[in-house]
Amino acid sequence: MKRRDFMTGAAAGTAAAVAAGSGLAQAQKAPAMMKKRIEMAIVTTWPRDFPGLGTGAQRFAKRLQDMSDGRIKVSYFAAGERVGAFDSFDEVASGNAQAYHAADYYWKGKHPGWAYFTSVPFGLTYTEFNAWIRFGGGQQLWDELAAGFGLKGVMCGNTGVQMGGWFRKEINSPDDLKGLKMRIPGLGGDVMAKLGASPVSLPGGQIYENLVSGAIDATEWVGPWNDEFMKFYEAAKYYYYPGMHEPGSMLSVGLNKKFWDSLSKADQTLVEAAAAMENDVMMAEYNAKNGAALARLTRDQGVQVRKFNDDVYDAFGKAAEEVFAGVVTHSPLAKRIHESFDKARREIGAWSNLADQAFVAQRNRVLGVSS
Amino acid sequence: MKRRDFMTGAAAGTAAAVAAGSGLAQAQKAPAMMKKRIEMAIVTTWPRDFPGLGTGAQRFAKRLQDMSDGRIKVSYFAAGERVGAFDSFDEVASGNAQAYHAADYYWKGKHPGWAYFTSVPFGLTYTEFNAWIRFGGGQQLWDELAAGFGLKGVMCGNTGVQMGGWFRKEINSPDDLKGLKMRIPGLGGDVMAKLGASPVSLPGGQIYENLVSGAIDATEWVGPWNDEFMKFYEAAKYYYYPGMHEPGSMLSVGLNKKFWDSLSKADQTLVEAAAAMENDVMMAEYNAKNGAALARLTRDQGVQVRKFNDDVYDAFGKAAEEVFAGVVTHSPLAKRIHESFDKARREIGAWSNLADQAFVAQRNRVLGVSS
Repeated sequence: MKRRDFMTGAAAGTAAAVAAGSGLAQAQKAPAMMKKRIEMAIVTTWPRDFPGLGTGAQRFAKRLQDMSDGRIKVSYFAAGERVGAFDSFDEVASGNAQAYHAADYYWKGKHPGWAYFTSVPFGLTYTEFNAWIRFGGGQQLWDELAAGFGLKGVMCGNTGVQMGGWFRKEINSPDDLKGLKMRIPGLGGDVMAKLGASPVSLPGGQIYENLVSGAIDATEWVGPWNDEFMKFYEAAKYYYYPGMHEPGSMLSVGLNKKFWDSLSKADQTLVEAAAAMENDVMMAEYNAKNGAALARLTRDQGVQVRKFNDDVYDAFGKAAEEVFAGVVTHSPLAKRIHESFDKARREIGAWSNLADQAFVAQRNRVLGVSS
Repeated sequence: MKRRDFMTGAAAGTAAAVAAGSGLAQAQKAPAMMKKRIEMAIVTTWPRDFPGLGTGAQRFAKRLQDMSDGRIKVSYFAAGERVGAFDSFDEVASGNAQAYHAADYYWKGKHPGWAYFTSVPFGLTYTEFNAWIRFGGGQQLWDELAAGFGLKGVMCGNTGVQMGGWFRKEINSPDDLKGLKMRIPGLGGDVMAKLGASPVSLPGGQIYENLVSGAIDATEWVGPWNDEFMKFYEAAKYYYYPGMHEPGSMLSVGLNKKFWDSLSKADQTLVEAAAAMENDVMMAEYNAKNGAALARLTRDQGVQVRKFNDDVYDAFGKAAEEVFAGVVTHSPLAKRIHESFDKARREIGAWSNLADQAFVAQRNRVLGVSS
């Protein structure tokens, strides 16, 4: 048992679950029920109380404990409180902790398939993502990928469409991206590299200082609500949309698979419902707060909102295709994930044209709703 | 006690909840917990197994029972199995049943505010709705409205943006709507009436026969997946989008307020999470299945998809404004609900322009995703 397990009281490798034995059988005819207690340590990739990502993960942890009336005892650890952010995967895969809350694309170095279960360039929006995962074969592929690492994934939050990033100069053609040092992780960074930029990956806490010092020229992070908190506007005034790189970043609860399999069907459903509620609530919070934050940024901080033009977007699209062509050569599983994702993107995306896209365009035109 | 309550074993007016008395206190220190059993009758406005609306409500009922490992015993009644569809409200308000699953705009005759908690013309999409209810003051207004009738509402499903309806002729100008007998309920029907159409309200099961016989000229229902099931294409070939009347119809669980208040905080959270999961799952199912259904309709049934032009939409917009102007004169509460809704529509709608709207337009353009 490692020291940290001792300190938190969690048994290494398994949940400290105690079945009530004969009490369970007896409860079948009694007016009350007895159920086993479960201890669950959740590690995360987010700083404590970080708006949206962190507060959402904390809300999920609290909800799960509340729903079970404390029977499932959840110990929540923000990044660095038990292990470093990017050690969350190993901590759970090894069974030292029972679950993580994270963005699964952080693990794309272990397998590029993980990127598809957070967000990829030219990918799926929040509602499209949910449709793919729940009814388009996405969950099955995710389960197959995760099982290979001793994990089981459940959707648990989304940031929605992210902004394209903060730039010190206008981006009027693909050439303006050349030589740009930009903080942009994941496959989005690979797209930028194809266009001659130098993508760098920095954890959230180090972006501001690098942007202010000029060590990087540009950065993306999330959207107005989160980006305002980071004060990037002090160093870069041009704020571009729409981001091609993360059009609906799904967060997930990754559970140790042995722990997951040890849960009763009832408790598995409890975890799924607590996570599904966060999927809905976190997205709602981003959508409710991004608009007001953007208004403050332009009004109070002199931020200039700019739209990537079609030339730039066409170049992003071509580069993204090249990136995907590389990803699918990794393995048959990577290829199957990409193909399933692409099918969903075309089928559900076609429906989006007639539904949300067409309606919101007409409603906002008629009512004069402008940004 | 009414006969039907006797037959189903449910106590009239309250849930048959039995606390475990001293067992609860004892459980605090024991490895297992004892919790009270609850019986819950759910009546609905949907035919049994009706795709999406009915199957979603049934899935919610089963999930709630499963999550509690059977401790919450749910008896589910489709429309007509215990009371008629539109008697669900009174059945729950009176305490004869503990909850309904329905579209709250069915109760707009009791108070026009109810319409806002399903969908209104030029209203909110699914993601915007969630943002308003959870973070824009929507839930508080819904609680105030519902409490006046002894109810408490929780979001539990959404159909997404609905199609504009099935027509026997093309609609090229607002004049083409004049004299049209169309099945379209709610405030959407009031908008059509302002434009000279004759809206009629028919339950789902009677629409097909009226359309085939020519008793009505046009109808809306939901979207491709549900509409295909109804075979409207046999009588009308022009299928219009986007629907202005229901851009994201939220379904809800309406609970008897005394029953709700009698639940522990843990069990309230259990109900909320089971419902929130259905909110997410039902929307995902509609989005996953609408596209494929639309493809079958155009390929196999000769359906002609048409877009309402700007002239028609401008007329819808003007008429909707007149309808809303009437609604707000009903009562101070109706006015407050409208104003809160309108604020959300402008603020969150403005963010939609930069986020989902802008991204999906560029992605679908670059990838050639067409409908």
